[in-house]
Amino acid sequence: MNLEKRKRSPLKTDFFTTFLEEGQSLVRISLSELERLTYELLKAAGLSAEHAGVVADVFMRATYRGVGHHDIYELPGRIDQLLKGGINAKPAIKRLHKYAALENYDGDNGLGELCGMFIMRRAEKLADEHGIGLCAIRNTRHILASSPYVEAAAQDGYIGYIVTRGAPTMGAPGRKEKVIGTSPMGYAVPTDKGYPLMFDACLAYASNGVLSDKAQAGERVPAHWGLDADGNPTDDPAAMSLPKGGTRLPIGGHKGFGLTILGEILTGLLSEGQLIDEPQPGTGEVGVPSHTAVCIKADGLLGREGLARRTSELIGRMEARAPGLIVPGKRSSESRVGILSRGGIDVPKGLIDKLNERASLLDVTPLTG
Amino acid sequence: MNLEKRKRSPLKTDFFTTFLEEGQSLVRISLSELERLTYELLKAAGLSAEHAGVVADVFMRATYRGVGHHDIYELPGRIDQLLKGGINAKPAIKRLHKYAALENYDGDNGLGELCGMFIMRRAEKLADEHGIGLCAIRNTRHILASSPYVEAAAQDGYIGYIVTRGAPTMGAPGRKEKVIGTSPMGYAVPTDKGYPLMFDACLAYASNGVLSDKAQAGERVPAHWGLDADGNPTDDPAAMSLPKGGTRLPIGGHKGFGLTILGEILTGLLSEGQLIDEPQPGTGEVGVPSHTAVCIKADGLLGREGLARRTSELIGRMEARAPGLIVPGKRSSESRVGILSRGGIDVPKGLIDKLNERASLLDVTPLTG
Repeated sequence: MNLEKRKRSPLKTDFFTTFLEEGQSLVRISLSELERLTYELLKAAGLSAEHAGVVADVFMRATYRGVGHHDIYELPGRIDQLLKGGINAKPAIKRLHKYAALENYDGDNGLGELCGMFIMRRAEKLADEHGIGLCAIRNTRHILASSPYVEAAAQDGYIGYIVTRGAPTMGAPGRKEKVIGTSPMGYAVPTDKGYPLMFDACLAYASNGVLSDKAQAGERVPAHWGLDADGNPTDDPAAMSLPKGGTRLPIGGHKGFGLTILGEILTGLLSEGQLIDEPQPGTGEVGVPSHTAVCIKADGLLGREGLARRTSELIGRMEARAPGLIVPGKRSSESRVGILSRGGIDVPKGLIDKLNERASLLDVTPLTG
Repeated sequence: MNLEKRKRSPLKTDFFTTFLEEGQSLVRISLSELERLTYELLKAAGLSAEHAGVVADVFMRATYRGVGHHDIYELPGRIDQLLKGGINAKPAIKRLHKYAALENYDGDNGLGELCGMFIMRRAEKLADEHGIGLCAIRNTRHILASSPYVEAAAQDGYIGYIVTRGAPTMGAPGRKEKVIGTSPMGYAVPTDKGYPLMFDACLAYASNGVLSDKAQAGERVPAHWGLDADGNPTDDPAAMSLPKGGTRLPIGGHKGFGLTILGEILTGLLSEGQLIDEPQPGTGEVGVPSHTAVCIKADGLLGREGLARRTSELIGRMEARAPGLIVPGKRSSESRVGILSRGGIDVPKGLIDKLNERASLLDVTPLTG
């Protein structure tokens, strides 16, 4: 994280070039080689072959979106956490309760990427049976991003939705206290356009990552995005970010705040996990994630083809009204197509070094380059 | 609508006092008397006794929130529409498709208040059987507000959610065209505090009603709320409102935009209704509403008592972090308690006159006062 300069520039065809420190070189790595290393590192860090495969798939899905964070950049940290025991490499995911199309689980402090895909697949099964299914999980870790899970569901023909929780880091309208998390969430819907309609965002105006990017670029941000450590309005992105003690604010004031509370209900509450600043029993840790996936199998209402066709028509009608409109999911798809057409992803040497340090430690074949 | 001056002031104990033109008097009417008139007007306008009862209940629930619009103020207009045939007083609601916990219906151009409560009650039944249920309806009318439906669901012990659609009146980030509706939605969750956690909002920064209030008060609004008729940023609330050709913008830019698209998917698409600017077959009308209700019966996961207790704990933890925090649903509850303790609601003479004009026309006993 220290070596690469992060800057969002989603219109660039290869995002990694924008994160380079001056003088740092790029190495083109094929996605399959990156997935191979990810899989082997996870397995060497203690995951079963099946779990390592699931988690490597999540990392690849996150990475080819071209965002430049919440993706392969987080892998070195995850490996370190697995090795230190901060995350359980061999979780025994246990069902707590089930009622028809509702289920909740304890994740046994397993990787968020594993638990997230587990609940999405369970929600798909429940939707097969009931048309709609909801599966929640507590006692797990960060899911990286929402896209990998909802994209997988949409590829299987479902409307997929996922939402997650963490510690209270966001404010409420007219207040300076941090009262709730930012309720990161995402959804995807099948289309017949070659990529799903896909959305992935938290309900604060800006993630800490975006604020950090803006600060590095010397930019100011709208003052309604957040407060500084003293609770005063500021247009300094660093001052409103969490590391500086700032408080980000929910989109649209009471509107984003209300939607965030719904996220906390769906996750912390329905998973039988923690709420707001509630410490986890046993560990006392605050902010332990819970996640919840919902799948809708609309086949019984309008057919699988009908869902994809109508979703494309919805997009087409918006694009006809506003030519060139950026439709959620389109940039991720373009990024993926770009990487595939170039035969690989250009990764900064600094990140390769970090990955290869772990490979060396775990006796895994390193990335060449 | 012309006689009463509307101004939001939710902290006032009796909101109607703030809508008065100078010199206009208030008359205290009991809620039961107002419900009696509503019921009788609806019945005289052609609704069955059962339907009139359902719709009168929705109007009362909307009215005791104390918002001052999207409530009893809309009744004269609804009665006129029923009498003119713009809304079907005797709709034959027809099921289109069903698959386990998913259902969709055609509302036969019936009242939104009727169709909205119909789908919420169906979603409750589906949740009884499946733990979660989703019911969509097309070819209907405006639902007034989200609160009445989700409040009813929460009172029955469910997590209730409703979302609705209309014509494209909202913009997208960085665009000046109107590309989508504002996706009005709401949810409610039972608590053991005497009122549900309850949320009701659209996903534009401001409703046209709020903009009208601000304009009347001579206030300016943040420029990120919308654009004028030429697509330029403005802080003039009137200029960005729909009647002036303005374009309101989604909360948080691409975030609110993405969430609004999900609303269109859940409503227009799953109901097999219209999308964006699609004309309704037969009538050619654009913007015909569809609504979708989702209910979750969490009893099987954590028990009905557990849901209410944990939701209250969630609220309590936020309030402990930010004493005096306005929790969604609390003001509605306070308004209701105030009305009940005063033995009635203070209604402007102008509105009473409008209601009594319809009463006279339909041979219904008028409100006294």
